[in-house]
Amino acid sequence: MTALDRTTGVAAAQGFRAAGVAAGIKASGNPDLTLVVNDGPAQAAAGVFTTNKVKAAPVLWSQQVLTTGRLRAVVLNSGGANACTGPEGFQDSHATAEKVADVLGVGAVEVAVCSTGLIGERLPMDAVKSGVDIAAKELAGGPAASLAAATAVMTTDTVPKQVALTRSGFTVGGFAKGAGMCAPNMATMLSVITTDADVDQSTLDKALKDAVARTFNRLDVDGGTSTNDTVLLLASGASGVKPDAAEFAQALESVCADLVAQLQADAEGVTKHVSITVRGAATDAEAVAAARTVARDPLCKTAFFGSDPNWGRIAMAVGNAPTAFDPQALDITINGVAVCRAGGRGDDRSLADLTGREITVEIDLHAGPGTGTVLTTDLSHGYVEENSAYSS
Amino acid sequence: MTALDRTTGVAAAQGFRAAGVAAGIKASGNPDLTLVVNDGPAQAAAGVFTTNKVKAAPVLWSQQVLTTGRLRAVVLNSGGANACTGPEGFQDSHATAEKVADVLGVGAVEVAVCSTGLIGERLPMDAVKSGVDIAAKELAGGPAASLAAATAVMTTDTVPKQVALTRSGFTVGGFAKGAGMCAPNMATMLSVITTDADVDQSTLDKALKDAVARTFNRLDVDGGTSTNDTVLLLASGASGVKPDAAEFAQALESVCADLVAQLQADAEGVTKHVSITVRGAATDAEAVAAARTVARDPLCKTAFFGSDPNWGRIAMAVGNAPTAFDPQALDITINGVAVCRAGGRGDDRSLADLTGREITVEIDLHAGPGTGTVLTTDLSHGYVEENSAYSS
Repeated sequence: MTALDRTTGVAAAQGFRAAGVAAGIKASGNPDLTLVVNDGPAQAAAGVFTTNKVKAAPVLWSQQVLTTGRLRAVVLNSGGANACTGPEGFQDSHATAEKVADVLGVGAVEVAVCSTGLIGERLPMDAVKSGVDIAAKELAGGPAASLAAATAVMTTDTVPKQVALTRSGFTVGGFAKGAGMCAPNMATMLSVITTDADVDQSTLDKALKDAVARTFNRLDVDGGTSTNDTVLLLASGASGVKPDAAEFAQALESVCADLVAQLQADAEGVTKHVSITVRGAATDAEAVAAARTVARDPLCKTAFFGSDPNWGRIAMAVGNAPTAFDPQALDITINGVAVCRAGGRGDDRSLADLTGREITVEIDLHAGPGTGTVLTTDLSHGYVEENSAYSS
Repeated sequence: MTALDRTTGVAAAQGFRAAGVAAGIKASGNPDLTLVVNDGPAQAAAGVFTTNKVKAAPVLWSQQVLTTGRLRAVVLNSGGANACTGPEGFQDSHATAEKVADVLGVGAVEVAVCSTGLIGERLPMDAVKSGVDIAAKELAGGPAASLAAATAVMTTDTVPKQVALTRSGFTVGGFAKGAGMCAPNMATMLSVITTDADVDQSTLDKALKDAVARTFNRLDVDGGTSTNDTVLLLASGASGVKPDAAEFAQALESVCADLVAQLQADAEGVTKHVSITVRGAATDAEAVAAARTVARDPLCKTAFFGSDPNWGRIAMAVGNAPTAFDPQALDITINGVAVCRAGGRGDDRSLADLTGREITVEIDLHAGPGTGTVLTTDLSHGYVEENSAYSS
């Protein structure tokens, strides 16, 4: 089987068990605590964390424990971000890891912690600790446990997001939640990915950083990077298969890209899925920067919402990007119609039909070999409604 | 008289005449061409132009003529930006300057040109040229001519914006139009300011750059810098008064700040006027950068629209700014209530009443002496409506 399978996820790979339970952290009584355990034989792990200077307590804790390159377990809660909660908040993350360590008979420094929800509120630690007890009893491998794990991390996500991929005898699978518009002021993106491939820590680390740069970091809904963003990758080695680094990296990137597509599709208030590709930049980094500037521009995003092939706004946004190019060489194509050629009016813009859900913008700067794509959404009434009316 | 007077503007200073007429550039038949003439005896001039790499033809023309440091006249049109119009568009700007030069008996290199309106369309040059003839006949000094000049540059502005200030025997006055949300895809900000003070070109230039940096560049509605943004300052010396550089700079900054307040007040779709002040940054530049990051963050802007004192979103936005600080030292005060202290929860956020039109956010980073303020607006349904429904 080499196809992406969304019926399973974080507990698909051999050596992993997971659970998702209702611990009473959320007032709604919905599932809110997820536990993922790596039974080995290996415990290599890697992580990528938010670049925000205001980091939540669980991020500070998990960055610290990951310096060993090993993890036995990850505990995640929704219903509270544990961000801007001071030294007490850090003690809460530490205590959560200690509780998981006690229950599993491992060390607290082998347990990563992730949180998502409101900023500035302490967690109800009694609920968190009793939730860990419940989750530990429900740990299992396979699709049902994977789905439960993917469900208990949801905030305003409308569907759980998970996928697994098996190829050449090893499996990579995981879940993700959140991303910008899906989740007003709990904009956190969390993802845990597992594999039974036998991969050393430095290979894991490089593969994860590369995959995140090309997938999660290319989805830009509203430009914000939350206080809690975390992606973790755990390897059990249980399949006994040692893929070469390139093959493993490719499988991992496929899984990450599919999770990102699910995140984009579930962004609430969204009516358009927009892909912005920049070609002909001096470097790939400049191409991504230019695409990101367009993806974040509110005038472009409202035009997408209005199904308006307004290339003048795109030209303006690209002109504001930190990217070198000759404005007289700028080409812009929207849904296949070359509306701007050589910096001026091209084909009739009314030929570009943007009434469907998918909008593809292609920009050629004719300044070099660099290319890059950023995925985004439109700026809709739904976005304003959800983010202004949301009570917090 | 030392008070700001909004009943007059660009033709208030001695030595200046102005006119604003309907030239037929706009399909609506509304006024669309403004002419400002400096009768001297001096003709010193300075300008600040858009930093966008995609510059409209009139910007390229005006930057070129301003290398002499002298201007006899400025001609401005609404109804078309003359941006992304190629070499033909540049020829149109040149021809407009030639026409003004012919009518006034001056040189084309003494005439600056500004345009605002849709990007990507050529101007109807017959209408532009006949409009120059009409305007030249109506040139006059004083309040009526000032108002006509301020009116003919309007796009989706709902009111003309002008002001003048007389102190120590010299006058500074001018008009402005546009700015972000006021003007969907004709987001151009144009301003022409005149003075009868006897000020040399290098003093003018420095005073204008400083004033723009502290006023026009501190209003950030939606982060975009248009292809046409231009601020011009012309000095006639007709009062015979030579103020010292500091006194002149102060008067100029007062006029610019008042025009910016009028721009912010007229931003359509806006329900909140937001002032974001950052203190305690390493430098003033870092303070402004941090304030700007908050001003542009859509999660913060939708919270302002919802009258929600959501300090967690502000902490997240500040954490994403290119500004060094210790997150454990972060203080945030909203409308006088210290909702975040030392990076954590402060006073009860429900004490901060944001239901009025004015919202003041004060952020202290405790990392140095740098301070800066950026003015912005909320992100409302009106913004989405105007910018998506606008036919272009």
